[in-house]
Amino acid sequence: MTFTATILTLYPEMFPGPLGVSLAGRALREGGWRCEPVQIRDFATDKHRSVDDTPAGGGAGMVLRADVLAAAVDSVADDRPILAMTPRGRPLSQARVREIAAGPGVIVLCGRFEGFDERIFEGREIEEVSIGDYILSGGEMGALVLLDACIRLLPGVMGAASSGVDESFETGLLEYPQYTRPFDWEGRTIPEVLRSGDHARIAAWRKSKAETDTRLRRPDLWERHEGARVQPPSGARRTKD
Amino acid sequence: MTFTATILTLYPEMFPGPLGVSLAGRALREGGWRCEPVQIRDFATDKHRSVDDTPAGGGAGMVLRADVLAAAVDSVADDRPILAMTPRGRPLSQARVREIAAGPGVIVLCGRFEGFDERIFEGREIEEVSIGDYILSGGEMGALVLLDACIRLLPGVMGAASSGVDESFETGLLEYPQYTRPFDWEGRTIPEVLRSGDHARIAAWRKSKAETDTRLRRPDLWERHEGARVQPPSGARRTKD
Repeated sequence: MTFTATILTLYPEMFPGPLGVSLAGRALREGGWRCEPVQIRDFATDKHRSVDDTPAGGGAGMVLRADVLAAAVDSVADDRPILAMTPRGRPLSQARVREIAAGPGVIVLCGRFEGFDERIFEGREIEEVSIGDYILSGGEMGALVLLDACIRLLPGVMGAASSGVDESFETGLLEYPQYTRPFDWEGRTIPEVLRSGDHARIAAWRKSKAETDTRLRRPDLWERHEGARVQPPSGARRTKD
Repeated sequence: MTFTATILTLYPEMFPGPLGVSLAGRALREGGWRCEPVQIRDFATDKHRSVDDTPAGGGAGMVLRADVLAAAVDSVADDRPILAMTPRGRPLSQARVREIAAGPGVIVLCGRFEGFDERIFEGREIEEVSIGDYILSGGEMGALVLLDACIRLLPGVMGAASSGVDESFETGLLEYPQYTRPFDWEGRTIPEVLRSGDHARIAAWRKSKAETDTRLRRPDLWERHEGARVQPPSGARRTKD
């Protein structure tokens, strides 16, 4: 069964776009996943092919119509999860990415303008997802991000190019910093421990760096990581209390 | 002065990609912003054009070399901020997007493989930025997201297509839900208040919905929003303490 991404959008020409390049692009050409953009406008019912209308209650911009969206969704719905990219959604996590990548594929609904008529989320089983706390011109960039995150996890896609484990978020921590040759760059040298050949010391140093960097850079992640333990270790700085 | 985006990448063919479509694409063609992808590999110094090497201390994958990255950065550096897309970075915020969009442009450094030699961030003035807590195949998708968020804020790009205010995060809250015609869709109707024509009631309803939805969907945002006040209002649910 091939992982199939169906993208409902007003800009089908954006897909596969950057996903047609590099490892994802090679996997696409080799049949490792399928990319099926669908034009929402094809499901409009009036002669002007309208997909949106003014917001009820007034305000700027236009809102995508529930009836048109539903017709588009119904035309492709199967056993795959249906995600809508929206800043009102649940923040995308690596755990959710892993779940989706392990399944048959995903249907992604991309909004433009002021967003979706809210009733589409009640009327169909749609998961509202946000890729971050910033505003984009539409859901298409979010769909590309979601798909890139999933596709790199599909069997055979990454190969030896990346490890897929030991990375940021997979452990609940940021990844430790990386170094490579040259040993001396502009007077800055690679930390001595990494050249020691002592695997235990290297592992301990990396774990310590991952913890320190997470605590300093992302107190929110650190707090969640520590919260997952029964008792916080002594010396762990808490950002709340 | 035209907003100029310079992207340092191993895949320059990914740009402008989806940013060449829709409003961002029209603005690009009309000279509203400039897109200048730069091939990092052009700054390699050996005959194999190597840009990466194995991680010091061992481990899977490859790390981008500091000397090659520095040469690429130095070739384009000016008064624009230099951002590197990395999961170890500071989470991108709408406030930072607004700052960048108000400036002369941005230089974006995109990694692949296991990431960057850490020394590049000490050796050059580079801001590490993350678009979210998930792993992508490289920094290119993050660069597209960052640029899309900035470009929509440039003068003349959005026009009447979107309001640019009153949206999620601009107020520190999620946006209120939107509705549009038809009034009755599959038995689901638009909330009566939005059809009342009473602007004060509509504004109060929207504010209340934005607050409720933020509290329920994003307790982290709600806590920050409430923390910004001198005294939390009674009835505000706190997720900590």
